[in-house]
Amino acid sequence: MAHEEVILLDFWPSMYGMRVRVALAEKGVKFEYNEENLAGKSPILLEMNPTFKKIPVLIHNGKPICESLNVVQYIDEVWKDKVTFLPCDPYEKYQALFWADYVEKVFESGRKLWMEKGGEQQTRKKNYIDSLRMLEGILGHKLYFGGENFGFLDIALIGICSWFYTYEKFGEFSTLIEVPKIIAWVKRCMQKESVSKSVAEPLKVYDFALQIRKHYGI
Amino acid sequence: MAHEEVILLDFWPSMYGMRVRVALAEKGVKFEYNEENLAGKSPILLEMNPTFKKIPVLIHNGKPICESLNVVQYIDEVWKDKVTFLPCDPYEKYQALFWADYVEKVFESGRKLWMEKGGEQQTRKKNYIDSLRMLEGILGHKLYFGGENFGFLDIALIGICSWFYTYEKFGEFSTLIEVPKIIAWVKRCMQKESVSKSVAEPLKVYDFALQIRKHYGI
Repeated sequence: MAHEEVILLDFWPSMYGMRVRVALAEKGVKFEYNEENLAGKSPILLEMNPTFKKIPVLIHNGKPICESLNVVQYIDEVWKDKVTFLPCDPYEKYQALFWADYVEKVFESGRKLWMEKGGEQQTRKKNYIDSLRMLEGILGHKLYFGGENFGFLDIALIGICSWFYTYEKFGEFSTLIEVPKIIAWVKRCMQKESVSKSVAEPLKVYDFALQIRKHYGI
Repeated sequence: MAHEEVILLDFWPSMYGMRVRVALAEKGVKFEYNEENLAGKSPILLEMNPTFKKIPVLIHNGKPICESLNVVQYIDEVWKDKVTFLPCDPYEKYQALFWADYVEKVFESGRKLWMEKGGEQQTRKKNYIDSLRMLEGILGHKLYFGGENFGFLDIALIGICSWFYTYEKFGEFSTLIEVPKIIAWVKRCMQKESVSKSVAEPLKVYDFALQIRKHYGI
């Protein structure tokens, strides 16, 4: 397509944003990256996602697409000529989408590990590890969740690797010991430049988490 | 397709289940309806949706598809020869999917109206009505959310009409007064047999809600 304008409204530690960054990099789509300041959201974010006011938002030729899993599917359909994220077979496709929805629950379990205080941290840790272990079972002995190819579910999950260090620090466990196949999968994914250049640095994410906790008095 | 076996695991008052019933009816797909007893889930439900153990589940030639919005998309892709639920244009398509996700929040706001006790019922009522009013704005002056045609977002939302009476009783408001265009839209949808024969009877739903509240001591 000629004269394409692709803008991404994003925030660097966001696992949801990382999905879109990885997807664009996989497709070789050039884009303008606009870092959002979540403490004071930009007029363009408020205009482009008035309903949820959340990143990531992909603005393609002036039109916004919101919600990260929607955005990744949109990218898959619009830029068809490169790799494909989702299988053609409807059953396989909706299995991948089912597990991508499940990843939302894994992310949410992870968030509780560092953002909630009081209550039972052991239970939160167990819930998080169990949810990741479920995905480890889905991965099985495959190279990627997409099989031989890095696919939709890989893109949906990979940003979590930036947060592993933070979860480990607050949950006091080792991801490598708990879900070794997931760690091996992350290493394979990180060999792809589309991933390694799109995900955030784990120590920077941990510093960010500490600041947020301080800000909220957690 | 020859020798097709289509089974739906469902529960009659479920708005999620109604989506699948309406979608199958719109496509003219014959199916076996299996009513689930949520107090004692069937072995087939536990086998077909081991992750969430939730209806609706569509079993197509022995393979399960779970999560209602996934199921409706699956139906749209597999039975292509009849009506189409989602637009071909990617931007329009992902707008419809964005608002279908939003419907989940409307359903959740509705659930809180009759399932939560204590706290601020006025706030819950306001949240619910505001969320429905947002959709009224999206409908605008169109016949259906899908424009001239009953489409994906219509299917995603229509089951709510079975619950309006329950929400009104517990929230003490009139849906007709609050969101008249939504009520007019429901009336148009109900002229379609695919809808009127798939949705549940509002008074029966209200009785069901009363039983559930009694069961949980609400």
